[in-house]
Amino acid sequence: MEHQFTPTHYFTTLGSHEPVLTVQPGDSVVTTTVDARGKDANREQVTPRGNPQTGPFFVEGAEPGDTLIVRLDSIAPNRDWAFCGSSVAPNVVRPDFVLELPEAGMAEWDVDVVNGTATLTTPESKLGRLTLPLDPMIGCFGVAAKGGQAISTATSAEHGGNMDYRGFRTGVTVYFPVFEPGALFFLGDGHALQGDGEIVGSGLEISMDVRFTLDLIKEHEIGWPRGENDEEIFSVGNARPLDEATQNATTEMLRWLVQDHGLDARGANLLLAQCVRYDLGNMFDPAYTMVCRVAKSLLPSGS
Amino acid sequence: MEHQFTPTHYFTTLGSHEPVLTVQPGDSVVTTTVDARGKDANREQVTPRGNPQTGPFFVEGAEPGDTLIVRLDSIAPNRDWAFCGSSVAPNVVRPDFVLELPEAGMAEWDVDVVNGTATLTTPESKLGRLTLPLDPMIGCFGVAAKGGQAISTATSAEHGGNMDYRGFRTGVTVYFPVFEPGALFFLGDGHALQGDGEIVGSGLEISMDVRFTLDLIKEHEIGWPRGENDEEIFSVGNARPLDEATQNATTEMLRWLVQDHGLDARGANLLLAQCVRYDLGNMFDPAYTMVCRVAKSLLPSGS
Amino acid sequence: MEHQFTPTHYFTTLGSHEPVLTVQPGDSVVTTTVDARGKDANREQVTPRGNPQTGPFFVEGAEPGDTLIVRLDSIAPNRDWAFCGSSVAPNVVRPDFVLELPEAGMAEWDVDVVNGTATLTTPESKLGRLTLPLDPMIGCFGVAAKGGQAISTATSAEHGGNMDYRGFRTGVTVYFPVFEPGALFFLGDGHALQGDGEIVGSGLEISMDVRFTLDLIKEHEIGWPRGENDEEIFSVGNARPLDEATQNATTEMLRWLVQDHGLDARGANLLLAQCVRYDLGNMFDPAYTMVCRVAKSLLPSGS
Amino acid sequence: MEHQFTPTHYFTTLGSHEPVLTVQPGDSVVTTTVDARGKDANREQVTPRGNPQTGPFFVEGAEPGDTLIVRLDSIAPNRDWAFCGSSVAPNVVRPDFVLELPEAGMAEWDVDVVNGTATLTTPESKLGRLTLPLDPMIGCFGVAAKGGQAISTATSAEHGGNMDYRGFRTGVTVYFPVFEPGALFFLGDGHALQGDGEIVGSGLEISMDVRFTLDLIKEHEIGWPRGENDEEIFSVGNARPLDEATQNATTEMLRWLVQDHGLDARGANLLLAQCVRYDLGNMFDPAYTMVCRVAKSLLPSGS
Repeated sequence: MEHQFTPTHYFTTLGSHEPVLTVQPGDSVVTTTVDARGKDANREQVTPRGNPQTGPFFVEGAEPGDTLIVRLDSIAPNRDWAFCGSSVAPNVVRPDFVLELPEAGMAEWDVDVVNGTATLTTPESKLGRLTLPLDPMIGCFGVAAKGGQAISTATSAEHGGNMDYRGFRTGVTVYFPVFEPGALFFLGDGHALQGDGEIVGSGLEISMDVRFTLDLIKEHEIGWPRGENDEEIFSVGNARPLDEATQNATTEMLRWLVQDHGLDARGANLLLAQCVRYDLGNMFDPAYTMVCRVAKSLLPSGS
Repeated sequence: MEHQFTPTHYFTTLGSHEPVLTVQPGDSVVTTTVDARGKDANREQVTPRGNPQTGPFFVEGAEPGDTLIVRLDSIAPNRDWAFCGSSVAPNVVRPDFVLELPEAGMAEWDVDVVNGTATLTTPESKLGRLTLPLDPMIGCFGVAAKGGQAISTATSAEHGGNMDYRGFRTGVTVYFPVFEPGALFFLGDGHALQGDGEIVGSGLEISMDVRFTLDLIKEHEIGWPRGENDEEIFSVGNARPLDEATQNATTEMLRWLVQDHGLDARGANLLLAQCVRYDLGNMFDPAYTMVCRVAKSLLPSGS
Repeated sequence: MEHQFTPTHYFTTLGSHEPVLTVQPGDSVVTTTVDARGKDANREQVTPRGNPQTGPFFVEGAEPGDTLIVRLDSIAPNRDWAFCGSSVAPNVVRPDFVLELPEAGMAEWDVDVVNGTATLTTPESKLGRLTLPLDPMIGCFGVAAKGGQAISTATSAEHGGNMDYRGFRTGVTVYFPVFEPGALFFLGDGHALQGDGEIVGSGLEISMDVRFTLDLIKEHEIGWPRGENDEEIFSVGNARPLDEATQNATTEMLRWLVQDHGLDARGANLLLAQCVRYDLGNMFDPAYTMVCRVAKSLLPSGS
Repeated sequence: MEHQFTPTHYFTTLGSHEPVLTVQPGDSVVTTTVDARGKDANREQVTPRGNPQTGPFFVEGAEPGDTLIVRLDSIAPNRDWAFCGSSVAPNVVRPDFVLELPEAGMAEWDVDVVNGTATLTTPESKLGRLTLPLDPMIGCFGVAAKGGQAISTATSAEHGGNMDYRGFRTGVTVYFPVFEPGALFFLGDGHALQGDGEIVGSGLEISMDVRFTLDLIKEHEIGWPRGENDEEIFSVGNARPLDEATQNATTEMLRWLVQDHGLDARGANLLLAQCVRYDLGNMFDPAYTMVCRVAKSLLPSGS
C-alpha cells in the first residue's frame, strides 16, 4: 500500500515521539522533507532550523531486536534553489592552518531539476558559475534512538541520524536496528549534491519529494546501519574520532559477512584485507561517519 | 637517459644514506625491489625484513625547497608468489570485538603475471580459491626525511615512506618535498594488490621490476606528498590518528588549488565542499594515510 | 529550606522528565541514590541498572541561559558493600595487548563507613585483602540535556552526566549550564572510591546518603560544567577522544578566567601555560572526561 | 667516578651519533645543557635551535635488550633569564575557538636561582609581574632511537625524547630501553618551570647545570620510559593522539607491576582500577605524553 503523507510538524530529535502515521510492513510512503534550516519547496520557513525530520512513521509489528528495512524509492529535489557553507570547517584542516577568507556567509546555487544540474550563483570566486550534476541524497534519517534516548538530528549513532553520506541516494536499501516498538522512522535534511566528508558542514541543502518503502526482518539484530545498492553492500560506523567510526563500520561488516553472507571468520578477514573500500561520510557533525564497502560480486554466490 | 641499476644492499630507514646512483633530472631508472620481508624474485632472502628499500638515488641539483617529481613508469610483479596477513588488525575493529580466529599465519597467493590475477591458495576458508585481478602498487617510497632524521620504513611523514596507498600504481606521477641535497629517493614494498586501509598490515607482498623517472621543480615548496593520474590530482596526509591524516591532506589540497591551479581561497573552499573525495590509504602503520582527491575536469582550464 | 526526599522511581536518561520535587534557589535536599546497578542501601534491586538517577529536581526560576549552582554538602556511602570491575578496559591499553585474565566477574569490597575504609574481599589475587581509604564521589549528575534531547546516563556532554571524576566529592561546588526551564537536576552513581580514568568501568559502586544545595546565577551562560573546592577552580570537558575532551576543558577555562576572574586574554594564556593541571576523569564511558584545574591562589585577588 | 664534561657541539636528533664521552655503569657526569633555542648560560647562541642535546654518552657494556638507568642528581638553572610562549596552542583548544590575542611573541621571565623563583617581566597583562616558585626539569632526554632511526628532538617515542613532563626533576630515577650498543644517552631542553601539557609549546626555557648518574640493568627489557621518585613509580607513553599515549603508559604499567612488583595480572588490574593517577606530560609536540603513576605504598612490600 502507498500512503500519501503531508507533514504538519517536524522533530529535531530522534526519540519516542508520537507517530504521525502507522504503516504495515511492505507499505510505501510518499511525502516531503524540508531543508536543513526548515524551509520547504516554496522557500518558506515552516519549522525551526536543525535538520527537521518528517515522521516518525510507526511500523506495525516492529519490536526491539528486529531490523527495519528502508528502501529509498525516490529522493527528488522539489525547488530550484539550494545553499551550502562556503568555508571548510576547522576540524578538517590542520589546527595551525589559517583560512584567510572574507566573511563566511552561505553560498547559493540555482538548481535545475529537469536537467539535473546545480549552478553556483554566489559568492563570487574564481570558480565562476560552476555547474555540477545533481546526486540527491538524504543527510539525516533513522529510527528512535536506543535506551529511551532522544538524540539530536545534529549527530548520529547506532540508530542512524545525521550521517551525511552521499551514498544514501535513490535506489539504495538501508537497514536500521529497531530500538523502540514501531521502530519510529524519521527522515529529512536532503542534499542535492555533497562531497565526501561534508567538509563545509552542508551539501546543497534543499527540500525534497521522497518516496520510501518500509519493511521488517523479524528477530534479526544488527549493530549499526547497513545498506546495499546494485553493486555493493556497506556498513556505516558513526562516532568521533574517525578511527572509532572506522572501527564501528569494519566490525559491523565482519559480523555481516559471517552472519548473512556465508563466510567464515577467516574468509571474512581475507576478503576485506584485499578488497574492502572505505568512504568518508562526514567529518563535520558531532559524530563522524565512515562507510565500509564490499562488492557483491566478491561474496559467495547465493548470499 | 635510462639507468639499469641492480641493488646490492637495502635500507630500512629513509635518511641521508650514501647514494647508490646519481642521476640527472629527467633520467629514468630500471631496477628491482624486494618484498616487505626482504625476499627477491627468486624468493631468496637477500636482506632483513622491514620494507627494505632500493636506493637512495641522488638527483643532481636537488636542494631543500625544491620538489622531486617521480613518475612511476612501470610497477610489475616479477614472481609467481605473494603473501599477506590473514587477520584484520586490532586497530581497525572495536576494542571489545574479539576476533575468533585460528592462529594467524600468513596467507599465500599464486600470482599469474601474464593474465594479471592472484589466486588464494592457503589457508582454507569459505572463500575457497578466490581469484582477484592484480592492481600493482608501491607501498613504501619517498625521500630522505626532514631535519636530518632517519625514519623507519614502517611509518610515513612529510617525506613519504610507508603510505600503503593503492593509488600509487603504474602511470601515476608523485611529488615529494626535498629535504636533503640530492633528494635521495628510495622505493620498495611492492603490493600486487591491496584493499583500502591495508587492514591486515599487508597487501599481496611481492618483489617487483620497476621503472621510474625522476625530475625536479626548482624552488617550489610543498608540504606533503602530492600525486596525479589521468583523471585526478591528490594530496597525501600521513599521521595518527585518521583525523590528523585527513587534516594534513585537506590542508595540502587547499594550498595546492590556490598555489598552482588558479583558484582563490573562496573558490578552493567551495570546490572541495561539493566535489572532494577521500581514500583511506592505510590504517595500520604507525602513521595512517588519508588521500584527498579532486577531478581534473573540475579545475579551471589551463591549470 | 531543607527538603527530605525519598525517591520512588529513577531515570536513566537526562532529559525533560516530570520533576519529582520543586525547590527554591538556595534550598537544600537530603535524599539517597542507588548504585550503578540499581541496588539500594539494603542491596535490594529497586530499579533497572544503568546509573539510575534520583530526581529531577525543578529549581524555581531557572531558565535557559542561567547557571545552576550545586553544592555537594555531603556524599556518604550508606551500606557496607561495594563492587567494581576487575579488568582494565580494552580502550585504555594498546590494541595488541592481550589481557590474560581468568573470566572477569565483579570484584567485591567490604566498606567500613565508620572508619572510612574499603577492603577487597574477592577475587583472590596477590593484592590479598587490600584496604584503601574511602574518597566518596558522585559519578553521574547534571541537568536536562540541551536541544530537547534525553541523553543516556552512560555518557556525558555539556549538561554533565556520567563524568566519573573523583573530584566531585563532599564540599565541592559545581556549576552547570541550564538548558530547560527549572534546570531539572539529577544525581546518582556514587563511588566510595575511584582511580583516575575509571579504567575498569567502575569505581567502588555503592548507594549513598546525599545532601546538596541548589542555587542559580541568573543570565550567566557557561559552556561546560565547572567546579571549585577550597584550593582550586576547574572546568570539565566531555567528549571522545581525550584530545577533544581536553580541548573542551581548556577552552572553558580560558573563557572563565577572562569572564569572571579578572584576567585579560594574554594573562589567561600565560597563567595556564606554566600553572595549569589536568586530571583524567574517565576514559571508559562513551564520552571521556578531562578536567582543567587552576589554583585559586594564582588568580588575581578579589576574583 | 664523576666526569666533568664541557659540550662543544650538540645534536637535534636522537640516533647513533659519535659519542662525546664513554662512561662505566655507575659513573656520574657533571655537564651543562643549552636552552631549547641553543642559547647557553651567557645567553649566547652556541648552536642552532630545536632542543639541542648534550651527548651522546656511551655506557660501556650497554646492549640492546638492557635497560639504562638515569638518576637525575641535579637539574639547576644556570642563568637569570628564561622565556616561554605566550599563546595556548591551537591543538589544546576547540577548533572553532578563536584566540583573540595581540601578536604572539615570547614572554620573558627574570629567574632568581638563589631564591628559586621566576618573575614575569614581559608582555604586559593583567597578571602583572607574576612570581612563581621554580620546579626545574628536563624537557627532552633519552637514548638512540630504535631500528637504526635518528628521531628529531621535537618529538618522542619509546626511546624517550621530547616528553616535556614536569615530573622529570632532580632526584628522579628514569629507565630507558636500550636500542643501540652503549645506549647513547642525550639530554637538553631544560625548563625552570612548566605547567601540565606544555600547552604554549614551552616551559620557562633555560640553560642548566646538570649532574646525572648512568647505570644498567642487563638483559632486562622494557617497552617505554619508566621512572620513580620517593613516593611513586610511573610509566610514560608517547604518541598521538592522547588516547594512544595513555594506552602505551597503562600497558607499560601493567607489565611492570607483574614483571617486577610481585603482582599477578588480576592484582595489577584491581590495583590500577581504584588507585592509578595520570599526568598529562605534553599535548603540544608531534607525539603527546601521558604518565601513569602508582604510589609505592600500594605495592606489595619488598617490591
